[in-house]
Amino acid sequence: MTTTVKKGELLYTGKAKEMYATNYPEVLWVEYLDQATALNGKRKVAVEEKGLLNNRISSLIFKDLAQHGIQNHFIEQLSDHVQLVRKVKMIPLETVVRNAASGSFERKFATPHLMTFERPVLEFFYKSDALDDPFINDSQVAALKVADAATVAEMKRQALLVNTRLQAIFAEMNVQLVDFKIEFGLTAAGHVLLADEISPDSCRLVDKATQKSLDKDVFRKNLGDLTTVYQEVLKRLASVEGDQQ
Amino acid sequence: MTTTVKKGELLYTGKAKEMYATNYPEVLWVEYLDQATALNGKRKVAVEEKGLLNNRISSLIFKDLAQHGIQNHFIEQLSDHVQLVRKVKMIPLETVVRNAASGSFERKFATPHLMTFERPVLEFFYKSDALDDPFINDSQVAALKVADAATVAEMKRQALLVNTRLQAIFAEMNVQLVDFKIEFGLTAAGHVLLADEISPDSCRLVDKATQKSLDKDVFRKNLGDLTTVYQEVLKRLASVEGDQQ
Repeated sequence: MTTTVKKGELLYTGKAKEMYATNYPEVLWVEYLDQATALNGKRKVAVEEKGLLNNRISSLIFKDLAQHGIQNHFIEQLSDHVQLVRKVKMIPLETVVRNAASGSFERKFATPHLMTFERPVLEFFYKSDALDDPFINDSQVAALKVADAATVAEMKRQALLVNTRLQAIFAEMNVQLVDFKIEFGLTAAGHVLLADEISPDSCRLVDKATQKSLDKDVFRKNLGDLTTVYQEVLKRLASVEGDQQ
Repeated sequence: MTTTVKKGELLYTGKAKEMYATNYPEVLWVEYLDQATALNGKRKVAVEEKGLLNNRISSLIFKDLAQHGIQNHFIEQLSDHVQLVRKVKMIPLETVVRNAASGSFERKFATPHLMTFERPVLEFFYKSDALDDPFINDSQVAALKVADAATVAEMKRQALLVNTRLQAIFAEMNVQLVDFKIEFGLTAAGHVLLADEISPDSCRLVDKATQKSLDKDVFRKNLGDLTTVYQEVLKRLASVEGDQQ
């Protein structure tokens, strides 16, 4: 497909990605940008190589998930900053899976940092810039007709499968997967399909040896150089995935 | 029982009630106070007759619910400000049932005021003054071991039954039941039992004729005299319940 897909009009600009149409109605062109944002986009800076690193990391993870039976929107990586994905109708929910307490959970419930859970915690956040992405429960999702009950159940099922596989990948990298955020879309046939990205922008990762953050918290909390950290994640991931690129 | 129950030591002081032990280990003495609070207790004022009115309203409602098969902690009303209730181990969750958008729901999701839902919305809030009673989902309830899954399912089941019966009572009073908050406890045998109170302090009520609030929003928003409003609720409720007192 690579040689024939042409970049079309800009459809959407996200915090760290741009989505374009292509000459194939079912295919989108995603450009990963060399920039980082925090505070829901209020803080934005250029970060060398970040788009390249996240594009590669996300491509490797999506490929791995598909090989492990978890279908997703990824089609192929086209270049350093570009990947092709299948077009879906995005469900306006962020699905968060937590294996240990951190971030908003830790603040809200005043738990010990990285307190582990017997079973993963699942949370939904309603994607709305105007409402500041509020935390939402299943009953509210239904009342606001954000998604029907079957869709929500399928999102939960897939989220837990993704968690199980990601934990295995990161364990091989000597990294603890603390939590992550994923997003789903609906195919034309109405099937729930994993979409968006999976990268250190959307995961909380802790190096098991040093207990240091290997994710966007480095940027959020000014803990060091983001590029170096993401390079380290890619290096370990490429090794686990047998990636030669 | 009335003649033999004696008030014991103060166990707990709430926002508008005091709970005392009695000479019966399974029985608590509840005094409804003539005061109102808002902003999680930060604003507190004396309100004439409020304790008396809420005690009577709550007693009539709990009696009605029991007659309609919804068991609860109410034993009997002892005097103007006192009722006896069965002692249970309180579950630290506020259960909120919403039939229409108001209050925190309306603010959080920017919905039209009193937008009705096809099915009632259920929400839990984790009772913790230190944490400011955060909104919590089922997965978090499990992770924090606040209640087990069977207990949560039973609370939801009973909450919907309570909603159905309360809607019928208030409809007869020409009042719309917008939303309400209830609390549950566990009996020594581990059964989920409706407890706390049901009154205009814990319900949002709108007069169907005038569209005016008949609840604590009158106090929260300084809309008029709380005593007059609660007297009106009791008058209509007593009429529906055939109460001669």
